[in-house]
Amino acid sequence: MIKVVIIGTGNVAYHISKAVLKNKKLEIAMICGRKKKLPTNFSQDIAYSNNFKKIKKADLYIICINDDNIFKISEKLNIDKESIVVHTSGSTELNVLSKHNNYGVIYPLQTFSKDKEIEFSNVPIIIEANSKLILSRIKEISSFLSNKVLKCNSNQRTFIHISAIFTNNFSNFMNVIAQDILKSQDIDSEILKPLLNETIDKLNFLTSKEAQTGPAARNDKITIEKHLNLLKKTKYFETYNALTKEIINLKNEL
Amino acid sequence: MIKVVIIGTGNVAYHISKAVLKNKKLEIAMICGRKKKLPTNFSQDIAYSNNFKKIKKADLYIICINDDNIFKISEKLNIDKESIVVHTSGSTELNVLSKHNNYGVIYPLQTFSKDKEIEFSNVPIIIEANSKLILSRIKEISSFLSNKVLKCNSNQRTFIHISAIFTNNFSNFMNVIAQDILKSQDIDSEILKPLLNETIDKLNFLTSKEAQTGPAARNDKITIEKHLNLLKKTKYFETYNALTKEIINLKNEL
Repeated sequence: MIKVVIIGTGNVAYHISKAVLKNKKLEIAMICGRKKKLPTNFSQDIAYSNNFKKIKKADLYIICINDDNIFKISEKLNIDKESIVVHTSGSTELNVLSKHNNYGVIYPLQTFSKDKEIEFSNVPIIIEANSKLILSRIKEISSFLSNKVLKCNSNQRTFIHISAIFTNNFSNFMNVIAQDILKSQDIDSEILKPLLNETIDKLNFLTSKEAQTGPAARNDKITIEKHLNLLKKTKYFETYNALTKEIINLKNEL
Repeated sequence: MIKVVIIGTGNVAYHISKAVLKNKKLEIAMICGRKKKLPTNFSQDIAYSNNFKKIKKADLYIICINDDNIFKISEKLNIDKESIVVHTSGSTELNVLSKHNNYGVIYPLQTFSKDKEIEFSNVPIIIEANSKLILSRIKEISSFLSNKVLKCNSNQRTFIHISAIFTNNFSNFMNVIAQDILKSQDIDSEILKPLLNETIDKLNFLTSKEAQTGPAARNDKITIEKHLNLLKKTKYFETYNALTKEIINLKNEL
């Protein structure tokens, strides 16, 4: 069995710990974090310490903490020469881990929330390593966790992260705005559910460029003007205006 | 049987014609449009004319054309006093149809594409009418087509339309950008599919505000700075920058 230590107790640590526990080829030696106790959503059978000096021996250390702290924690980490250290960040350089002999990245391309379960085997994992040997080792371990493992360099990984921000964070923010607008009119936002589902279902049949409809895609100036007038007094005027202009530009390019 | 004439041959006309054909209480008297022939995606059993003077008698005329032309077409339309005329637009005032005795709105809240089938009974229909009597008539007919019929005034309908633009058009545009960024790095955009599905699936468990994750939601300045640097030479710099700022503001308000 491959022994794994997970560093961190956030959403990524939680979902990775669940995936590791499920896998017969992997075993959690412990979780190490800043909190006094392991949060209750984690399996309470897992050994836990908030004392970094008591960290156990393992084949693989997975750092699942805020980007800003990865370097600092890595520098504090004293482990066997043969062990591998990876971080799970989309936008942190591989070489912040260069203190170690064997290091790499296991970046799971997914949005993780505490209260929402996911099927980890469907989550694409982007990998990187400091040598061919370690890359093949990380690839093997990642393939225990996911059906889709992809090797990329640090620059590509960051662009994947940026694209994920558009696909998830920014498009979710569009729904935040939509719900806020409906709320201001006392309309139940449940009414948008079929449209929300169709927005994604369409992309199984059409490219996102083909799926682009609406006043901006048609450059329907009268409707756009009317909407901007109504939005003038809200904080969403600028977003509507800017995105509409960009969609019009996109259509002109096609 | 309630006789229906559909005016227009676009995506909305196509999907409404399919829903009407399926319903036993409704019957299509004809479709009227500008094109020489009824487009081949429509059922070719439907009577068609591009001569507006030959329009048949019907109980209900459904205008499914570009917003800018609704008033013009309505003015040209000479029908029996008892007949009802409706348009299907999200952002066009009810009273553009005021030439007629009985008029209203049947606005289906969905994104319609030619090549993508949908289950019309799940599409919310927003209705409005010029009298209580006609409203109840339009409500009855709409309930033959959809399980969800909602009465709104013109102003509310436009806000629903604007919220739909955020939920569908703008969030789809986020996917256009994401795919474009991946393409620039020679990475297959299929890799985003699980994230795309999870983005929507999450909203069955969390509100969109709760589902908001990512560097902007965390105000992770180092990562944001890194992304903006990489995007500097692309046309997506401004969008990333503006939306990030708005998400930070949103989080500060909570």
